[in-house]
Amino acid sequence: MLKLSSSQADFTDRLQALLAFETAQDPAVDAAVAAICDDVKARGDAAVIEYTNRFDRMRAASMADLTLSREQLEAAFQRLSDPVRHALSTAAERVRRYHEKQLAHSWSYQDEDGTLLGQQVTPLDRVGIYVPGGKAAYPSSVLMNALPAKVAGVGEIIMVVPTPDGERNDLVLAAAYIAGVDKVFTCGGAQAVAALAYGTETVPQVDKITGPGNAYVAAAKRRVFGVVGIDMVAGPSEILVICDGDTPPDWVAMDLFSQAEHDEIAQAILLCPSAEYIAQVEASVARLLPQMSRRAIIEASLSNRGALIQVSDLAQACEIANYIAPEHLELSVANPDELLPRIRHAGAIFMGRFTSESLGDYCAGPNHVLPTSRTARFASPLGVYDFQKRSSLIRVSQAGARALGQVASLLAHGEGLSAHARAAELRLDANA
Amino acid sequence: MLKLSSSQADFTDRLQALLAFETAQDPAVDAAVAAICDDVKARGDAAVIEYTNRFDRMRAASMADLTLSREQLEAAFQRLSDPVRHALSTAAERVRRYHEKQLAHSWSYQDEDGTLLGQQVTPLDRVGIYVPGGKAAYPSSVLMNALPAKVAGVGEIIMVVPTPDGERNDLVLAAAYIAGVDKVFTCGGAQAVAALAYGTETVPQVDKITGPGNAYVAAAKRRVFGVVGIDMVAGPSEILVICDGDTPPDWVAMDLFSQAEHDEIAQAILLCPSAEYIAQVEASVARLLPQMSRRAIIEASLSNRGALIQVSDLAQACEIANYIAPEHLELSVANPDELLPRIRHAGAIFMGRFTSESLGDYCAGPNHVLPTSRTARFASPLGVYDFQKRSSLIRVSQAGARALGQVASLLAHGEGLSAHARAAELRLDANA
Repeated sequence: MLKLSSSQADFTDRLQALLAFETAQDPAVDAAVAAICDDVKARGDAAVIEYTNRFDRMRAASMADLTLSREQLEAAFQRLSDPVRHALSTAAERVRRYHEKQLAHSWSYQDEDGTLLGQQVTPLDRVGIYVPGGKAAYPSSVLMNALPAKVAGVGEIIMVVPTPDGERNDLVLAAAYIAGVDKVFTCGGAQAVAALAYGTETVPQVDKITGPGNAYVAAAKRRVFGVVGIDMVAGPSEILVICDGDTPPDWVAMDLFSQAEHDEIAQAILLCPSAEYIAQVEASVARLLPQMSRRAIIEASLSNRGALIQVSDLAQACEIANYIAPEHLELSVANPDELLPRIRHAGAIFMGRFTSESLGDYCAGPNHVLPTSRTARFASPLGVYDFQKRSSLIRVSQAGARALGQVASLLAHGEGLSAHARAAELRLDANA
Repeated sequence: MLKLSSSQADFTDRLQALLAFETAQDPAVDAAVAAICDDVKARGDAAVIEYTNRFDRMRAASMADLTLSREQLEAAFQRLSDPVRHALSTAAERVRRYHEKQLAHSWSYQDEDGTLLGQQVTPLDRVGIYVPGGKAAYPSSVLMNALPAKVAGVGEIIMVVPTPDGERNDLVLAAAYIAGVDKVFTCGGAQAVAALAYGTETVPQVDKITGPGNAYVAAAKRRVFGVVGIDMVAGPSEILVICDGDTPPDWVAMDLFSQAEHDEIAQAILLCPSAEYIAQVEASVARLLPQMSRRAIIEASLSNRGALIQVSDLAQACEIANYIAPEHLELSVANPDELLPRIRHAGAIFMGRFTSESLGDYCAGPNHVLPTSRTARFASPLGVYDFQKRSSLIRVSQAGARALGQVASLLAHGEGLSAHARAAELRLDANA
């Protein structure tokens, strides 16, 4: 695992190299995805069934074979063991409660002349949620994508999830049940994204598609963007831990592991003023690693992109954190509230030694879909606001039309737009 | 101008054909833009100067020749005539006041066990605003892009505006002054977008780029998206007027013109239950058109993409409006408040006969950067929310770590992520 110190002369360059991540899109993937999308757009259900049978080794004769009802989702929920069912319900309830605080409401105000200005907030009509299948089937992702849409008041939530070889994941379907997903299609890949974006005979066209997926899914989402809304295309997961040197080193090591175990290109970084503590964490990493079930992935991730960085003090750690703008930031210090005002850019901030990042992944309440690859400089966690949109309201009174019309007319003429000016002028002295 | 009736058997198909708009990107433009962006990334200022001299026929020797200070902006403001200066100030003040209502604030709440959950709202550090130069130089766009950023509390606002042949537009620079733009570079095109996205020796790297531009600018924004945030890439402008048949027909004709004059591919549509009124508007269009300074553009736009559509009643008009999800929607009726609850999708809603769309373009208060091409189904006007971002806050108490840790551990094991589970378990019965 790379060790750096902020006192090194070339520290900035080395930090940049550490963070660099190749986001270039693969032209071969793009071409394959374009062909699939066009085919689904042209042939609808038939194309979806063909690709699903081919890529997921299924034998669907019609879309009915790829459709799950609310009843089938409920059955999956009932099949869970009591403790797991309870855990899933608890997580859903906490996530729902947090997201309810994000609901935006319509507002308006009036000028003295009776002119009304405002903003009408409405939910999206229909949303599609992509859920990966196979190995990386994450029920928590179902909750994190569907619940904000549900809280926003989205009319219909359609989920797609591939079931390679017909294998369904009860936890995923149970999560869809709890989160209020209306309908599930067991298909995935670019064909599922295209079906949601363009609609087919069976799959209703949605207004926005969210949820993680592989390179084909990401390319398809990028392709249909504009026809429908999409969430951000996520990069590899990251954690940045700022520690004062007094958290049990095993805890910090395990927090680094918990991002590293996602992916060989995930990134786990520790910032700490104490070289001694960094050595202790390093020892914990070495001791704990052999016990981990996903050891190979963790090892690759830590050696590819991990780092232990000694900083001069916690203030400098915060400055470096702002530069990195990490997806997950742990303030594993005695008084995290003291550091918080210094943090400008981070997807989620985990405050205090007891707040392991994994609590946030599952059940603390906030969303676990977070901006990656430094995009927390300008982007936010997935939230209710991603499933609501705003319309401006303007209702100008006759007196208002006189006052505003003169201003608009002058400025429109200044821009050479005489029809704009004339439309305002016609209302200046009129009765209607 | 096309005339349709919703009673026609093939109405839905004809409406779809009317709305269809080719958004395919030009591979030649993409390739040219890629080369320019890579060059600016590699060579910085030198490349920006070269491209600017070449494309805008300038003779800049260094970036100093392409830089305007706050003092130069103020001088432009002072050079305006009194009425124009007053109009610009009035517009800015109203736009600022409206946008102040959009400011989001941080919040948090605590569980009974002392666990804190919240959302920290912060402004972006630095934003770039692209302003087109030459013929389509719109000071109103400067206000509409810069003021929301200013209200959000963005630390620094950098504007780029091309000045072909060295010609500067005082109104544009004055608008930048009023809106609080910190620095202006007189360059444009893909080279300006790349300079903002990657930073050069002189141009500071920004976190987000907003503002309209030509095909090269749009392609460059798409290319740098991810490195920085961008606003939506806008399609042609649109207006949909719903009229009950009692607004002076000249007013409606002029409102249709005021979108049509933007662009040959802009779209202006009227929905009305009365065939007689539609004929009156048609007559107004024929009579007024020859008087318009931008007659050729208006004529092309109306014949390419305009339509007068007879509907069965106003309720059906609202349904059609929701399908179209127009950028601008005028409810030119006696009681617009009655129709408002039926409208789900529109960028901005102009209520009542006195509310011409052009008032909203300049000075009513709401933003004139609005979602086009049916994207109002999922997108919102440009706003303060585009220049703020959110970080989730989680501060788990020791008791909270016990309660949440059990849930997280169960779910993490269910997903096969044992480091996630272990990180939670380590905090279950610990002291720190």
